[in-house]
Amino acid sequence: MADDGPGRGKVLVVGGTHGNEVNAPWLLETGLREASGGLELALVIGNPEARAAGRRYLDRDLNRCFDPERLADPGAREWEMLRARQLLELHGPEARDPALVVLDLHSTTAAMGNSLVVYGRRPADLALAAALQQRLGLPIYLHEGDPRQSGYLVERWPCGLVIEVGPVPQGVLNATIVNQTRLVLEVALEVLATARQVDPSLPRTLVVHRHLGSLDLPRQADGAAAAMLHPRRLGRDWQPMQPGDPLFLAPDGETIGYAPPSALAQQTVWPVFINEAAYGEKGIALSLTRREEWRLDPAWGAALQAQARQLRLVSG
Amino acid sequence: MADDGPGRGKVLVVGGTHGNEVNAPWLLETGLREASGGLELALVIGNPEARAAGRRYLDRDLNRCFDPERLADPGAREWEMLRARQLLELHGPEARDPALVVLDLHSTTAAMGNSLVVYGRRPADLALAAALQQRLGLPIYLHEGDPRQSGYLVERWPCGLVIEVGPVPQGVLNATIVNQTRLVLEVALEVLATARQVDPSLPRTLVVHRHLGSLDLPRQADGAAAAMLHPRRLGRDWQPMQPGDPLFLAPDGETIGYAPPSALAQQTVWPVFINEAAYGEKGIALSLTRREEWRLDPAWGAALQAQARQLRLVSG
Repeated sequence: MADDGPGRGKVLVVGGTHGNEVNAPWLLETGLREASGGLELALVIGNPEARAAGRRYLDRDLNRCFDPERLADPGAREWEMLRARQLLELHGPEARDPALVVLDLHSTTAAMGNSLVVYGRRPADLALAAALQQRLGLPIYLHEGDPRQSGYLVERWPCGLVIEVGPVPQGVLNATIVNQTRLVLEVALEVLATARQVDPSLPRTLVVHRHLGSLDLPRQADGAAAAMLHPRRLGRDWQPMQPGDPLFLAPDGETIGYAPPSALAQQTVWPVFINEAAYGEKGIALSLTRREEWRLDPAWGAALQAQARQLRLVSG
Repeated sequence: MADDGPGRGKVLVVGGTHGNEVNAPWLLETGLREASGGLELALVIGNPEARAAGRRYLDRDLNRCFDPERLADPGAREWEMLRARQLLELHGPEARDPALVVLDLHSTTAAMGNSLVVYGRRPADLALAAALQQRLGLPIYLHEGDPRQSGYLVERWPCGLVIEVGPVPQGVLNATIVNQTRLVLEVALEVLATARQVDPSLPRTLVVHRHLGSLDLPRQADGAAAAMLHPRRLGRDWQPMQPGDPLFLAPDGETIGYAPPSALAQQTVWPVFINEAAYGEKGIALSLTRREEWRLDPAWGAALQAQARQLRLVSG
C-alpha cells in the first residue's frame, strides 16, 4: 500500500494571505478541532505584516505576486514579493521540507457562501474540487485566462485551491464564517488523506462556474463611479443574470440594465464576487461566469491520487 | 419672522470622516436629490487622504481628534489633527463663514440599522434627535461620559449629531445604505428648515439608549482574542441582553454567557455596535446601553429653534 511509504511532503494551509481577512487566521491559531486525517500540515499566516496593519496588503496584493516571471525579477522588491519568495523557500514544492498541496483560505464581502476557487484546469485540482462539491455541494469558480488577474498563490504548488467564504466585512471575526471555513478545510484534508490510501471517490460530473470576464461600475470621465450596483443584484452571487436585468443604479434613480459585452450577447451569465470591497481598486464590480456541467475525466482522480500519495503522515 | 433675517451660518454635512466609509461621500458627491429645505449647506469629505488610501485614517482616528486640549496642543501634529484644525478653520462656529449645525454621516459593519448618535445632553441636539425619532422611528445612542472615547467631531459645533447606518462592510458602496443615509439627512434638514421659521414640532417623549460602557473580547495573556462573539448575538444591536445570555464562543465550542460588570449586576442591557470592524483595535467588541424613555424638556425645542434661526438660506 502506498500508505507504507514515508511520503515526502506536507499540506500547506494558508490563512490571512490578505491581512484584513481575519477569520481563517483565527481558525488556524485557535486550532482545528477535528483531525486532519493524519496528514502533516504547515499552518501559515500568509501576510502577517499586513495583518498587523489591518490592511489587505502593504505594497502589493500578495495573491497577485506569484507570477514566475515576476518572482524571478530581482527588481521586484515590494514587501509582498519578498514574502512570496519566502513562502516558496519555506514551503514551496522545491523547499527542503516541501508542501505538495496548498489550501488558501479567504473571505469576501460578497455573498459567495461557502465556495471554491480553482485556477486553471489542473487535473488534481479539479478532482479535489469535485470531491468537495460531491460532499458539501459547494459552487466552484473556475478562474482562468484573465491577463488582468494573475499570479495567484496556489498556482505555484502542484495542487491547490482557494476556499472562499462570505459575506463578511473586512476585519470582522464571525463565528459562522469561521465554522464554514473549518468545515471545508476539514473535508478537504479528509479527501486528501483518503486519496493517499485508496482511489478517491469522485462524482461522475462536476458543475463549474467558468470565468468569462469582469465588469466595472460605469465611470465618469474623471474616473469617479457614475452608478452603484443595483440593490436587486446585491447578494445574488451564483444566480443567473439575463441581458436587461437590473445591474446598476444611477444617482438620479435610473436603473441600468445588464448590457452584455458583444462576445456574450444574448447569453445568460452567473455573476460572482458582486461588490467585493477589495476589487473596487481593481476596477471590478462583479465577475461574470458561465455555469457548465463537466463529465469527470478518470485521469483527474489518478492525478489527485498521485499527489496525495506523496503526502506525509504526522506519525510518518 | 425669523425668516426675514439673513442668518449668519450654514449647515455642515460631513461624509467620509472615516476614509473607508464610502456611502456618505457617494451621496454628497452625486447630489442630494431632494431639496435641503433651502438651507445653505457645506458638503465636505471629512478625511479625503484616508479615503484615497482606502483606510479609516492615516495617523489617528479623525473622529477622536476634536478634544479642545488636544486641538490646542501645538505638539499634536498627526495628519488628522491638522485636518481637524483645518475643518474648524474653514467651517467651525468661529470661522469667517461659520457652520452652526453639523451632520456627520457614518456607516458601520454592525447591524445598527438607520440610527442616530448624540454626544452628551445638549438641548438642541436632543430636540433634533427627538424630531427625527418622531418622524422616522430611529433609535438613538446617547454617548456620554466615557473617558476612553472622546474628541468627537460634532462636539465642536453648537449643535450636531451623527447619522450611523449599517450593516455594510468597509469600502463597500451599497445603494440601500446610501438611500437610508439620504432619508435621514433630508429629514434632518427639513426639521432644521422648519425650526428656522416656526416652533419645531416635537414628541412628548424620547427613547434613548444611554451608553454604559464597552466590552472587549476575552483575551489571552498575550493579548490575542480567546473567543469570538457568539453567533446568536451577532446582528442583534438594540435588542435586550440579560445576564447569562450567550455572548462569546470559545474555540472549543463553549458558549460564554454575558457576565455583567458589577455596577450592572442583574440589569438588562441593550448592546450596540456589535462587532464593528474598526472597534477591534480600540478593544471594543460591543457597547452596552440602557434603554430609557425621557420626557422632553420644552427648553430643548427652544434651543433647537435658537440654533436654526441663525441658519442662512441659499437665497438669503
